[in-house]
Amino acid sequence: MAARAERRSFWTWGYVSDEPSEAARKDAARNLAERLGHGIEPPTVPAIDAIALRPARLDVPAAFADWVSASAEERITHTHGGHSLELLKGLNGRFDSPPDAVAHPRTEDELEATLAWCDRDGHVAIPYGGGTSVVWGVTVPEDAASAVTIDLDNLNTVLEVDEVSRAARVQGGMLGPDLEAALKPLGLTLRHFPQSFPWSTVGGWVATRSGGHYATNHTHIDDFVESTRMLTPQGWVESRRLPGSGAGPSPDRLVLGSEGILGVVTECWLRLQKRPTFRATAGVLFDSWHRGTEAVRAIAQAKLMPANLRILDPGEAAFSAGLDGNHALLIIGFESSEIPQGDNARAAVAIARDSGGLIEDDEILIDDGTGRPTGRGGAVGAWRNAFIGVNAGLTAGLGLLSDTFETAVTWDKWPDFDAEVRARVGASLREAIGEDARLSCRFTHVYPDGPAPYYSFSGVVPRGAEEERWQAVKAAASAAVVAAGGTVTHHHAVGRMHRDGYDEQRPQLFAEMLRAAKRRVDPRGILNPGVLIDV
Amino acid sequence: MAARAERRSFWTWGYVSDEPSEAARKDAARNLAERLGHGIEPPTVPAIDAIALRPARLDVPAAFADWVSASAEERITHTHGGHSLELLKGLNGRFDSPPDAVAHPRTEDELEATLAWCDRDGHVAIPYGGGTSVVWGVTVPEDAASAVTIDLDNLNTVLEVDEVSRAARVQGGMLGPDLEAALKPLGLTLRHFPQSFPWSTVGGWVATRSGGHYATNHTHIDDFVESTRMLTPQGWVESRRLPGSGAGPSPDRLVLGSEGILGVVTECWLRLQKRPTFRATAGVLFDSWHRGTEAVRAIAQAKLMPANLRILDPGEAAFSAGLDGNHALLIIGFESSEIPQGDNARAAVAIARDSGGLIEDDEILIDDGTGRPTGRGGAVGAWRNAFIGVNAGLTAGLGLLSDTFETAVTWDKWPDFDAEVRARVGASLREAIGEDARLSCRFTHVYPDGPAPYYSFSGVVPRGAEEERWQAVKAAASAAVVAAGGTVTHHHAVGRMHRDGYDEQRPQLFAEMLRAAKRRVDPRGILNPGVLIDV
Repeated sequence: MAARAERRSFWTWGYVSDEPSEAARKDAARNLAERLGHGIEPPTVPAIDAIALRPARLDVPAAFADWVSASAEERITHTHGGHSLELLKGLNGRFDSPPDAVAHPRTEDELEATLAWCDRDGHVAIPYGGGTSVVWGVTVPEDAASAVTIDLDNLNTVLEVDEVSRAARVQGGMLGPDLEAALKPLGLTLRHFPQSFPWSTVGGWVATRSGGHYATNHTHIDDFVESTRMLTPQGWVESRRLPGSGAGPSPDRLVLGSEGILGVVTECWLRLQKRPTFRATAGVLFDSWHRGTEAVRAIAQAKLMPANLRILDPGEAAFSAGLDGNHALLIIGFESSEIPQGDNARAAVAIARDSGGLIEDDEILIDDGTGRPTGRGGAVGAWRNAFIGVNAGLTAGLGLLSDTFETAVTWDKWPDFDAEVRARVGASLREAIGEDARLSCRFTHVYPDGPAPYYSFSGVVPRGAEEERWQAVKAAASAAVVAAGGTVTHHHAVGRMHRDGYDEQRPQLFAEMLRAAKRRVDPRGILNPGVLIDV
Repeated sequence: MAARAERRSFWTWGYVSDEPSEAARKDAARNLAERLGHGIEPPTVPAIDAIALRPARLDVPAAFADWVSASAEERITHTHGGHSLELLKGLNGRFDSPPDAVAHPRTEDELEATLAWCDRDGHVAIPYGGGTSVVWGVTVPEDAASAVTIDLDNLNTVLEVDEVSRAARVQGGMLGPDLEAALKPLGLTLRHFPQSFPWSTVGGWVATRSGGHYATNHTHIDDFVESTRMLTPQGWVESRRLPGSGAGPSPDRLVLGSEGILGVVTECWLRLQKRPTFRATAGVLFDSWHRGTEAVRAIAQAKLMPANLRILDPGEAAFSAGLDGNHALLIIGFESSEIPQGDNARAAVAIARDSGGLIEDDEILIDDGTGRPTGRGGAVGAWRNAFIGVNAGLTAGLGLLSDTFETAVTWDKWPDFDAEVRARVGASLREAIGEDARLSCRFTHVYPDGPAPYYSFSGVVPRGAEEERWQAVKAAASAAVVAAGGTVTHHHAVGRMHRDGYDEQRPQLFAEMLRAAKRRVDPRGILNPGVLIDV
């Protein structure tokens, strides 16, 4: 019934094959035990058929038996999103609010039938792409009387490629790697690499306004969407393929970020490009975090538009890239399918040096189409590898609390913003975790008018106290970010987790307009109730 | 009461001082007479106080007397937008559907009072920036029982500049030149130059999703808006200043393109930049329109992102830039405040040559910060001057019909799109105007996935028949553009003129959602009824 090659793990990020081995988990526990000074054992992973589950509260129509299931396995693997505390719940065998059934429609007709069934019988309907939401975007609300998760995994094809315009019509359930694999023989690529890329889907990216690996210029999926096709309980909304338009408010921009409350995104046309062959990379050190971020501002405002322009604060540079803890690391990268990028890299480095950046000329790595590696050695390569491996499961259940929060803010508020967030979150961390708690920052995206800072925190808490301690820190982080003028989320989405901050930051009447629009297409309020707005 | 330094002309584009002289109009008539073979005299411009006007159908509250007027002059100068046939009506003294009063609120409080009055008494309210709409976006609907035009001309200040983030908080009624004059002492610029720039406003740009002079990358005002502030009959909608966000559908993107049906845009934060000092320009000839547009596609898809990338078909290149009629002219231009642009220009020219582009190396004009003129000589300069002078009034009333229509379409549909549009509009032109009618095309904006073609047509028709003949051609043009896969407007907006095409191209359920959102903030439907949607 499910279309993915593999089953999604119910306790770690990714598939069953991504789960760390028992031996690796024991090693990790031993390492942590040395740090803690007392022994610690990783919890036992429960067998999936030993997990106790609330009985399904609905009957699957017999005609839907080919694509809708109420099996325990389906319900278990669709209960939680990708947040580490959800995965910890999974590891602890806790599946308190599972969907009552999971649909895997193989056609748009089956999707229509599924949504009509939910609408008629009043089942909450939860659109589901790769299940990587870290904001409780795919979880069943506790007050739902019944819920059906609609997994798009069978709608996972590239339907059409327009090589002339460089665009493709892609189904919503397509995973990142599958999309790139389908485009590769044509020499084309979307090049949208959110950190969830291996496990997340095109429809999920659109619904959550995901941010890609490009640090500057177009990076949100918003900018790569040429048109969208979405099924609502009241019918289809399909926009016209257009490279640009000024005809009224953009229909696509209402779909983008709608997080499943308006409909199910089944298809979109995406803008592609040729694969890059020219690259240039530089890793620049700064002995001051503040001067480093000033360099980032100067490069962004010079509109060189590098593909990469990420700076790691000294703590993060030490932890993720092996630096000495006294230097921030700025990673500059350019890429192009057509134009050599050495001059751009040298221009960016010159600006960085004006702000105190340290780099030798011969450390600027340039690939003028020969395939010379530019990003896999040294500190840059170390960071790249740390970024790619998400492995949340390795230390799950050991009492290690680790999470991130991300935002964007205008430059005039930076660095006061940073100081205030660190002060408030730092205080909360000391209280919830202790003096050993770590808090660090990097920029994931940079705009001419402001950065998108990404904070990571971690520490050791008593086993069993993870959720309570996390709640306190998370609440402090969201409140601090919004109070200091940032957005409660730059690319992780709102879901159910960020509702408080979102309610505070977005215009009240906009929420009312969104609610009115939702009522028009979802009059019974079955689609993801509680996400973004109350129905 | 009105805040502009000058009164807007009621029969030509711009202010009274922009009106052509009697002598110039007679010269233009003589030139046309030679072409026609019979004498022709320009019509007499009516004195403003001799124009017959329907009595105002409402009473202005006494408390509003400082900023609301029902004077004939106010009503006459706010009856028509900027379309040439509206101006011709003005020249002919026809003001059939004037607003009943014109408000010039000097503060947000006065704006609130004005809108509350309209809402309470059921007057249609028409937000008005510079009055340059060419799509009947500021005209009073004929079935309105009473109407108040709300001119933002008193809300015309830069309230705040954030030099660090390079952004400014600007009031909606600010004109393009006033904005640039205010920013110039700071070395900053918005650099958003729609063709209406001298007479149009920031609020108008936002409401209509105007397109600027940048041919590639960010050019719609959408991309320069950091936040918006809009008054609706139900209160204010104000978004947070953010460089980027993934928190739900973008509130600003619902305001952008709302064309006055949701509220009055009083303020926005706009993203600025430093003034460019590095420039490079090249004019490249092609002996084939099709090969020229192929070159444009190749340059756009190489992501060089030139500021200018406009191609004129042979007819337009002859008419506007003095070429021989057998060559298309591609104008390539780069600009930067930081980085020399010679290499980029040479890279673009190399791509153009691959598609048959003709240019000598020494015809690439490069200004590496010395102020060397790059765009004011030769064919490029001739075209630039033709673009800047809009002067619609010179030949008004002589029977010369001249208009444009603009669109955007994906590359896979081009050049068939061009052939179909020319065939259908050409047939209509032959019927409505005759064999002498001209039809030409240029690209105003270019995206990696498609161009924004801009068609111009003109010809001589019997005096008095202009409107009827225009109707036929315009209907053919809109129908052809939408049928062939384009958008009914790329940057001129929908207004009342493009409703048929818009209704056809936009998703029906999106219109329903937009209507539901409008009802929430404008329950009595007073704001610009009939624009974009029926209430």
